[in-house]
Amino acid sequence: MRSLLFAGAMRPDHVARLPRSAPDAVVIDLEDAVSAQHKGAARSAAAELTADLRASNPELDIYVRVNAVATSWFAADMAVALSPSATGVVVPKVEDVADLDAVQGALARAELPGLRVIVGIESARGIACVERVLAGGIHAAYFGAEDLISDIGGRRTPEGTEVLYARSRFVLAARLGGVIPVDQVVVDVRDADAFRTDALRGRALGFSGKLCVHPSQVGVANEVFGVTEEERDRAARLLEAWTAAAATGVGAIEFEGRMVDEPAVRAARETLRRAAAPTHEQQ
Amino acid sequence: MRSLLFAGAMRPDHVARLPRSAPDAVVIDLEDAVSAQHKGAARSAAAELTADLRASNPELDIYVRVNAVATSWFAADMAVALSPSATGVVVPKVEDVADLDAVQGALARAELPGLRVIVGIESARGIACVERVLAGGIHAAYFGAEDLISDIGGRRTPEGTEVLYARSRFVLAARLGGVIPVDQVVVDVRDADAFRTDALRGRALGFSGKLCVHPSQVGVANEVFGVTEEERDRAARLLEAWTAAAATGVGAIEFEGRMVDEPAVRAARETLRRAAAPTHEQQ
Amino acid sequence: MRSLLFAGAMRPDHVARLPRSAPDAVVIDLEDAVSAQHKGAARSAAAELTADLRASNPELDIYVRVNAVATSWFAADMAVALSPSATGVVVPKVEDVADLDAVQGALARAELPGLRVIVGIESARGIACVERVLAGGIHAAYFGAEDLISDIGGRRTPEGTEVLYARSRFVLAARLGGVIPVDQVVVDVRDADAFRTDALRGRALGFSGKLCVHPSQVGVANEVFGVTEEERDRAARLLEAWTAAAATGVGAIEFEGRMVDEPAVRAARETLRRAAAPTHEQQ
Repeated sequence: MRSLLFAGAMRPDHVARLPRSAPDAVVIDLEDAVSAQHKGAARSAAAELTADLRASNPELDIYVRVNAVATSWFAADMAVALSPSATGVVVPKVEDVADLDAVQGALARAELPGLRVIVGIESARGIACVERVLAGGIHAAYFGAEDLISDIGGRRTPEGTEVLYARSRFVLAARLGGVIPVDQVVVDVRDADAFRTDALRGRALGFSGKLCVHPSQVGVANEVFGVTEEERDRAARLLEAWTAAAATGVGAIEFEGRMVDEPAVRAARETLRRAAAPTHEQQ
Repeated sequence: MRSLLFAGAMRPDHVARLPRSAPDAVVIDLEDAVSAQHKGAARSAAAELTADLRASNPELDIYVRVNAVATSWFAADMAVALSPSATGVVVPKVEDVADLDAVQGALARAELPGLRVIVGIESARGIACVERVLAGGIHAAYFGAEDLISDIGGRRTPEGTEVLYARSRFVLAARLGGVIPVDQVVVDVRDADAFRTDALRGRALGFSGKLCVHPSQVGVANEVFGVTEEERDRAARLLEAWTAAAATGVGAIEFEGRMVDEPAVRAARETLRRAAAPTHEQQ
Repeated sequence: MRSLLFAGAMRPDHVARLPRSAPDAVVIDLEDAVSAQHKGAARSAAAELTADLRASNPELDIYVRVNAVATSWFAADMAVALSPSATGVVVPKVEDVADLDAVQGALARAELPGLRVIVGIESARGIACVERVLAGGIHAAYFGAEDLISDIGGRRTPEGTEVLYARSRFVLAARLGGVIPVDQVVVDVRDADAFRTDALRGRALGFSGKLCVHPSQVGVANEVFGVTEEERDRAARLLEAWTAAAATGVGAIEFEGRMVDEPAVRAARETLRRAAAPTHEQQ
């Protein structure tokens, strides 16, 4: 899940164009992209928008983002907006393990038990219980820096140092729970360099992909969270050199100026595995 | 509480001049600013210094910093140094929830139950229990980077990367507990740029204000943790643009090159609220 | 423990040369530096290599790194590779308090109860329980950034921002548990500047020393984690100035442009203590 592109449910034109930039998954949004007075209309539109998108994109991962469990819109969103055409549901602002129970209950009532669940962790309370929330049963989770920093009363900066603690704690918790970690939004939609820089930071931290709020961000996300030819070739050379040394009993060698042992070997194998995997299996 | 200016209780001249730089709050210090052999004299002086300051500054928030709960000075400091003229007490090096009980007990014995409590978190043990200590009943808390790094055996650097984990964890815990978070000291009292840079970092992290150890730092703190005209104007423009879009059902718009939705709208409203608030209410 | 130099047990030439660069401690490695098919041979060689090294270096701290508790090699490593000539054992990839019990049990069975234990924390699970694992009974612990980031699925960068959260949390836990914290490897063995920069960051964070994977790194580690003449002289001047002021009751003074009080005084005393200590006592 290298890229997860959003469009608001009140913008059918944007929704229809979602697949064009080739994101790994798309999200029809009922939450932040829809204003309070139009939540009902958006909810009614969502199932049809999903079905249309599915009809022309049978292989695409299509999600619907509902409003948070604590809102008055949540129950109706889960009952009306979801459909068997959807791959899963995105639940924002999860702050408690009880929120997960509410989601599972609503999925059961909607008779959609097979739908995947992606949760958003994007508040002080959400971070405080992130280890418990991401402990299991969830497909993926995203880290919401904008909401978090607004909740804490801080300010976003290009460096992102203000969210490094929460972002790092999130990705560690996700990996422990076997949940795919998806990185924060970059709201400067005109600044491709800012997106790339932030994506590289997310990748270094251990994220699998990134939320995208503009089609132009998708290609960069797919590239940064994918495997480049150069990376693939280096991994192959490294494994060859290490395997030759290992035959003589040596497990740590110097390779192209660096000490290389078990962790680097594991990473190289993972690189080759991802380079060989079909796109929709890449995480 | 944008600025909290300290003066030692053995320096009545400094104490008398505390209000000149217009800090949001002042602290008469019995702890680090007073050497061990003068703790008794400082303690006796504190109540009178507080009363004098109060007489000429009826609206000023005046605090007394006592010595840590674990010291032999704490009980007498609480019994003698505080007075109804004080706004509250600052308790340094809190390392345990039991320390808070000791403070409340001492306030009750001194018949000063209305005094506000500000605690300092500034040791490895303090950080280890910061979520529990800041869980409630405290007005504000400060993060003490100098003491913390000395306790851990590290070194302070201008970038402050060495305390980013603890500083971030502190501010998250404070926001969760409803406690006003006050940021670390900058000891380079001659370097106004260093103070400003560090204050901007603290603001981005979510702090409400900063400890000041020199009057020249107060103005910068008040500016950085206040709302500028530019910020106020941008917030007003953003709300206007978003409100117009929301009427058509769209909750996420592009505004001056950035994707703007719920979190940005909340932050803009908070900016306007703070810009409109009288200074002594700003947090 | 400013420097801890590794050599693989299958490289007797490297092991014999370990003391030349004057590390504070050396490690004969059975883990990452030995490939799977040679674990048995390396294990058999280890005790003899230790004895030879001890014979010519009676004062040297000599450790043997065994394979992780969860591997099939661990029990035999503990039974065969250790000897009374060794100072202690290094146990990598500790992920649970139960791992420590396994180590103590194996040491008891090998009738080597006096051996020191150094553990490696280098996985998502290890970081998740680092506070409990480092709570006591361990001599030292190292932070393994390469393995950790490989486990999380991230990427190492020269800045190391991707491990700052885990590295900071580790050193805080170590200081709380009274365990000597040893910092991460730098695998760019040809880049002395990279090693120095990373060592300075580790020192700022509170680490006592650094893992070294090449003899050229040892001198830099000893220098960075030791006390320079300049540091010693500044500490002496600071204490002199502060002591003079303290006699008049003032505990916070301006010293060479900085506000100096209790934390700085404690740090200066620690600097002088370390500068006066014999090398093998420096931590």
